[in-house]
Amino acid sequence: MSKLPNISTSIFTVMSKMAAEYNAINLSQGFPNFPVDERLTNIVAKLAKENVHQYTPMSGYLPLLSKIALLIENSYQRTIQPKTELLVTAGATQAIFTTITALVKSNDEVIILDPSYDCYEAPVLLCNANPVRVALNDDYTPNWEIIEKACTAKTKMIIINNPHNPTGKILAEYDLEALEMLLEKYPAIILLSDEVYEYITFEEKHISAHTRKKLLNRCVMISSFGKSFHVTGWKIGYLVAPEYLMNEIKKVHQFLVFSVNSICQFAISEYLEIVSVAEIGKLYQEKRDYFRQLLKVSRFKLMPCEGTYFQVVSYAAISNENDVDFCKRLITEHGVAAIPISTFYADGKDLKLIRFCFAKDNATLEEAAKRLCSI
Amino acid sequence: MSKLPNISTSIFTVMSKMAAEYNAINLSQGFPNFPVDERLTNIVAKLAKENVHQYTPMSGYLPLLSKIALLIENSYQRTIQPKTELLVTAGATQAIFTTITALVKSNDEVIILDPSYDCYEAPVLLCNANPVRVALNDDYTPNWEIIEKACTAKTKMIIINNPHNPTGKILAEYDLEALEMLLEKYPAIILLSDEVYEYITFEEKHISAHTRKKLLNRCVMISSFGKSFHVTGWKIGYLVAPEYLMNEIKKVHQFLVFSVNSICQFAISEYLEIVSVAEIGKLYQEKRDYFRQLLKVSRFKLMPCEGTYFQVVSYAAISNENDVDFCKRLITEHGVAAIPISTFYADGKDLKLIRFCFAKDNATLEEAAKRLCSI
Ligand SMILES: CSCCC(=O)C(=O)O
Ligand SMILES: CSCCC(=O)C(=O)O
Repeated sequence: MSKLPNISTSIFTVMSKMAAEYNAINLSQGFPNFPVDERLTNIVAKLAKENVHQYTPMSGYLPLLSKIALLIENSYQRTIQPKTELLVTAGATQAIFTTITALVKSNDEVIILDPSYDCYEAPVLLCNANPVRVALNDDYTPNWEIIEKACTAKTKMIIINNPHNPTGKILAEYDLEALEMLLEKYPAIILLSDEVYEYITFEEKHISAHTRKKLLNRCVMISSFGKSFHVTGWKIGYLVAPEYLMNEIKKVHQFLVFSVNSICQFAISEYLEIVSVAEIGKLYQEKRDYFRQLLKVSRFKLMPCEGTYFQVVSYAAISNENDVDFCKRLITEHGVAAIPISTFYADGKDLKLIRFCFAKDNATLEEAAKRLCSI
Repeated sequence: MSKLPNISTSIFTVMSKMAAEYNAINLSQGFPNFPVDERLTNIVAKLAKENVHQYTPMSGYLPLLSKIALLIENSYQRTIQPKTELLVTAGATQAIFTTITALVKSNDEVIILDPSYDCYEAPVLLCNANPVRVALNDDYTPNWEIIEKACTAKTKMIIINNPHNPTGKILAEYDLEALEMLLEKYPAIILLSDEVYEYITFEEKHISAHTRKKLLNRCVMISSFGKSFHVTGWKIGYLVAPEYLMNEIKKVHQFLVFSVNSICQFAISEYLEIVSVAEIGKLYQEKRDYFRQLLKVSRFKLMPCEGTYFQVVSYAAISNENDVDFCKRLITEHGVAAIPISTFYADGKDLKLIRFCFAKDNATLEEAAKRLCSI
């Protein structure tokens, strides 16, 4: 009688809990363990004594909306209207849930790439709509031919995730062009572009879908200050959408949360005046490079990582176990928690791959690597 | 093509915006304008420098869950299991949306009393279910006979709001007994009890639905720290539900927001050690009494107010306008914003009633009353 009979506790909760039980180094669920920028925590401490504790407007604290528009202008040279094209959300997850709930109807189809982060399917199912999973290529690039074959008159939405969790893959300009060509043939399809790691990118240039002329009028782009500013607990994200879609999204938003945590909105608004988002990619590029360097002498095989704070590795040279069992043993026997990549596949495909989060201070990365190199 | 064709911007947003435009005293949307308890803001300022900025567990920060269980134990002498019967939510609105989304299916019927707060219908409609509005009696007590007549094999849920927004009505023990008798005949019906003003009560004793033996196993009770601790902007609420319902609610919650603002959860957890909820009712009882006293010489007729921080008044002796027009004129000509009660009725019934929020410092109440008494 459940509306979500096949959904159980998310792998991130399961692994973080098990990591805590076994006192393992937790490289599973994605969150930083280093201190938040003092400039930001100072702002919070100061704001606590100010008048920042009552409802912000439904779409978000107005100065924050303006600052986000400025950030987008500076990052992507795109001008958006803060009052009509921006919405502050209780994290990216709420943005994704709200967008799907507002726009997807019974019997619609939603294309979700495989592997994928785990929060797209549930809202689609709750709309009585059908998730249509389409496999990425082996190198995690989208296969636009297969995606096009999956498009039908019922297709309402395509969800992309760029940079991609868990694989760290960034869509090339070629991919965005292919997507544009595809969508030209299907004028009813909306693009949901989950770009929560938009500022955690390295050598490859990340192209934001909403900055493309041919996409901006049918694209909902979602981002996360939790990821960008190392405050995953704050649950402050935002979405960019053209006004006609935003109007529908706001209808749901106003009855789903009404508004979002005020003090953290005020804090991010002030912080955006002094922070440079260029710092974020640099910080994580150093961490990625350091972590990869430390693991070079291990028996794990490092996969490419173009963005996000996740490093996928193969343990095929170490064990034949399935990846869930391997992750459990990694915790219990070696004191390191990771995420099995099979859990990102609709069919649980086991490629002997696991994901580490390297958003950790160097001492943690070193100790984790020491343990992993001893396997 | 909208999924919510009949839903527009909520009256609270409309009136707060208009109040700001005209620089009117805003007694419309419900939020306090006095400073938050210094003990609480001191906790926030201190916590800002601590390790409180990453994801809390999906159900809530564990010490907060324990403290809420203790609060419930102390307030109602009911023991609940924090890990399985409690969920921290991004405000009561998210709790309500999530509960309805998790439990109500296509073609189900949900009984909503009339007048009602405005956030119940949208999630029901988004489930492709049918809201069934049942009028309260003229004195705002439920008419259990009519409610029973509205129950069918399709009825999945009855939503009550106790204390009731906007009327301030509290359900009598008699009402809860009638409800129990009714539900005994309809074993499939779930009770959603919105009790966000549970601690803002005066002479009448408020009976929480989840403390009733015959209800607790089928009742989802929802509360709000925003209301109780004068921090409506924080968006921290919680819900109490039996485990079999909670399991379904958590499935939706984990993909709707995943978790809730961390720093404010930590802060409330500490604050619950030192605050007494008995203070809350006393504070607002004084405000209610003062505001009513100030309005006694006005031409507005005061309705009873048993709980909440809202005072309903009749302007029938002043004007024949409909209540929306009257509220607009109250802002533009008299500099006071209120909420028209017709917006709480499904059919917009106009009884020449408007609602004032008295959660304001005395100077504000005095100035508002001065303006209202001059009409
Ligand atoms: C919301 S918990 C999961 C965090 C995350 O984004 C990840 O680990 O992939
Ligand atoms: C969420 S804005 C409305 C606040 C409120 O509860 C009310 O004014 O009734």
